[in-house]
Amino acid sequence: MKKYVELSAEVQQAKEEGKAIVALESTIISHGMPYPQNVKMAREVEQIVRDNGAVPATIAIIDGKIKIGLTDDELELFGKSSDVAKVSRRDLAQIIATKKLGATTVATTMICADLADIKIFVTGGIGGVHKGAETTMDISADLEELAQTDVAVICAGAKSILDLALTLEYLETKGVPVIGFETEYLPAFYTRNSEHKLNFSTDSIDVIAETLKTKWELNLKGGAVIANPIPEEYAMDEEYINGIINQAIKEAEEKHIIGKDNTPYLLGKIKELTDGKSLDANIELVKHNAKVGTQIAVSFNNKTK
Amino acid sequence: MKKYVELSAEVQQAKEEGKAIVALESTIISHGMPYPQNVKMAREVEQIVRDNGAVPATIAIIDGKIKIGLTDDELELFGKSSDVAKVSRRDLAQIIATKKLGATTVATTMICADLADIKIFVTGGIGGVHKGAETTMDISADLEELAQTDVAVICAGAKSILDLALTLEYLETKGVPVIGFETEYLPAFYTRNSEHKLNFSTDSIDVIAETLKTKWELNLKGGAVIANPIPEEYAMDEEYINGIINQAIKEAEEKHIIGKDNTPYLLGKIKELTDGKSLDANIELVKHNAKVGTQIAVSFNNKTK
Amino acid sequence: MKKYVELSAEVQQAKEEGKAIVALESTIISHGMPYPQNVKMAREVEQIVRDNGAVPATIAIIDGKIKIGLTDDELELFGKSSDVAKVSRRDLAQIIATKKLGATTVATTMICADLADIKIFVTGGIGGVHKGAETTMDISADLEELAQTDVAVICAGAKSILDLALTLEYLETKGVPVIGFETEYLPAFYTRNSEHKLNFSTDSIDVIAETLKTKWELNLKGGAVIANPIPEEYAMDEEYINGIINQAIKEAEEKHIIGKDNTPYLLGKIKELTDGKSLDANIELVKHNAKVGTQIAVSFNNKTK
Ligand SMILES: [Mn+2]
Ligand SMILES: [Mn+2]
Ligand SMILES: [Mn+2]
Repeated sequence: MKKYVELSAEVQQAKEEGKAIVALESTIISHGMPYPQNVKMAREVEQIVRDNGAVPATIAIIDGKIKIGLTDDELELFGKSSDVAKVSRRDLAQIIATKKLGATTVATTMICADLADIKIFVTGGIGGVHKGAETTMDISADLEELAQTDVAVICAGAKSILDLALTLEYLETKGVPVIGFETEYLPAFYTRNSEHKLNFSTDSIDVIAETLKTKWELNLKGGAVIANPIPEEYAMDEEYINGIINQAIKEAEEKHIIGKDNTPYLLGKIKELTDGKSLDANIELVKHNAKVGTQIAVSFNNKTK
Repeated sequence: MKKYVELSAEVQQAKEEGKAIVALESTIISHGMPYPQNVKMAREVEQIVRDNGAVPATIAIIDGKIKIGLTDDELELFGKSSDVAKVSRRDLAQIIATKKLGATTVATTMICADLADIKIFVTGGIGGVHKGAETTMDISADLEELAQTDVAVICAGAKSILDLALTLEYLETKGVPVIGFETEYLPAFYTRNSEHKLNFSTDSIDVIAETLKTKWELNLKGGAVIANPIPEEYAMDEEYINGIINQAIKEAEEKHIIGKDNTPYLLGKIKELTDGKSLDANIELVKHNAKVGTQIAVSFNNKTK
Repeated sequence: MKKYVELSAEVQQAKEEGKAIVALESTIISHGMPYPQNVKMAREVEQIVRDNGAVPATIAIIDGKIKIGLTDDELELFGKSSDVAKVSRRDLAQIIATKKLGATTVATTMICADLADIKIFVTGGIGGVHKGAETTMDISADLEELAQTDVAVICAGAKSILDLALTLEYLETKGVPVIGFETEYLPAFYTRNSEHKLNFSTDSIDVIAETLKTKWELNLKGGAVIANPIPEEYAMDEEYINGIINQAIKEAEEKHIIGKDNTPYLLGKIKELTDGKSLDANIELVKHNAKVGTQIAVSFNNKTK
């Protein structure tokens, strides 16, 4: 197994020094945002992690290896290349075996972080149960990964293109904790609130870190969702953004854009319809997640090292 | 892991002497029945386990510990307190980490029993697929627990507020054995029968114990449902109770009582509408499960110790 | 665990010599085809495996043992007996504990192959999500097995009596690779194509074997589907066979033939309505799977022994 995993110099050193490490995904760079904003965002997020006392490990697949921590050139490569596969759990072995370039989704970043024994992962939003999944069964592999892989995901909730009520039901059935940080309601990515009350909320980084420690010491397998709302000043107007999301979903349906192309299409369309304001919000929420996630990583590291 | 688990003196001694142990849940006490019937029932059930040659281990979360076996005062506390959390898999780490009082559901009792290496667990009925789950995705975490945790649950079937056909389909997909004890049909909690034929029925305690032993020796992970119908003399009239269940479900829908509050609401409403007769039936079926479950525990213990 | 598993002399010798071994199921013999074609097919398939450089291991349950490799008499017994249980995951422990005769489904053959450390398994088609499963929740245990047990299944896709779109969605959510061999579309059992494009296709046996090796070395638990279309010369006309399948499904619905009896009923009815031509196609696709599967088994064995 070890032969497939390659740590960057910075991550290797952090391991040796017992420093906190924060995993970051690469699909957000290759498929989630346009160039050059994606690479700028990635670098800023990495710097936020460093500024808050941990080391960033952006994860991607290159030439048959799982890279834990990317160089600046590699970040640029993923930001610019149009030839990057979006790698979910089902694709991982194939992309490694055929030595293709692969960007890791939430699910695959969790797998790779776990292989490198990194327990805290910061992203924008998780996948979930798609609207209409009662008949299409279109449910993100991220949810199954959360049920089985011991990595906590700090995010601004599930992407609001999804069915949030069904996503919460699925996570409950699978026994995945959803912890609201400074919120009693599941955040809806571009906005701070949804109508979905959470059954566990806290304002304490320490309580989150202690809960994760307890969970894994009890061998309660699987991850956790730390739901961290977008800062007030960057949140979008609820009625406005929901109208645009519904329009984008309608267009994707009409064009029959499904499967792994669906989410990138919707994010692009929403960006277009909001004149780029959705992208700004997306970048700001990721940065905020990086700050909170790093605080959790540092606290967790202090408790367990 | 061991630091979170605390055995009662009685359970500790049973372990040392190699005696059979039967796990019991605490949500049935705190959320399933009113005081003082709940505590009376709990004590009688524990005594039935002892009278049939095993030791009872009622499970609950107190002050950051998983208690395996409760004192008389602790039973009383769970019967009376209005400040007890209902703890499913997703909640377990948090309730322990924040040292709250927690009652264990079927899923969580299975987890905790397994942590204490107790393989036989007696309760009233398991959770399942809720009516309407085709669109709400409201499916109890108990079913996923049965798919993954090596504990057998002796019960009177799934609570009849559920969709029994879908519950059986879900368990089949997940590979969970459902064994009818002295019945060819899935019992429906308050009544002995449903229209759902089981594919494995037996009148033999020994065959059940041997099947469980074989399952776990083969590393076929997950539990089993031993479906044990309510004794004839305590069974309710089918048409009568189903009418009341449907009325209670309709009222819960109108009042939008969903999620973890749904089952306690329905049980309370059914009790009210039957003038307490549903509670009497519930108590009797649990006692009968305790007797049969203890016989299974003793047989299983003899085969494996 | 070892006490339940019994290797045939041929399989035992193959193990000692480090030869490639190919698992084969027995439900296809006992419940999938009529006598004597079933036994003839079974023998021919075993010979194809030998002719291509591996050793066949047909799997079944006899007298409390999991047989890995059957004698000629045992093949005949399973072909003729009307008293063979169809054994899915939920049934396995019980059939062993009660020493009944049991034929293994795809799910159970995967479990038993894995117990005997055989990683490549050839069959006709896997189970999947049934048409109408949005409301019936009728989903084959094969899919859950593919999500958790490390055995690759070479088949001609999912049986076309199923909902192929939903089956692919389910496998994606569960992270199961579906690899098209010499096809870009999911084959539909009796026909080479469906409208469902796969996201991983290859013409290379070596790439498949390398992908499986990589998957399991990374501890990515679960199997893979190698979808190998029926040879052109044996494929049925799409419109013709789909019409018949729909007629058979309609009749099964009218007669309310559900659960584990559904698939055998449909296969029998389709055979009747096609004057046996569906059976001929079924036999030919299994033989072709045996050839391709054995090539994969040999390549995989060379890479990992
Ligand atoms: Mn999807
Ligand atoms: Mn629920
Ligand atoms: Mn089924």
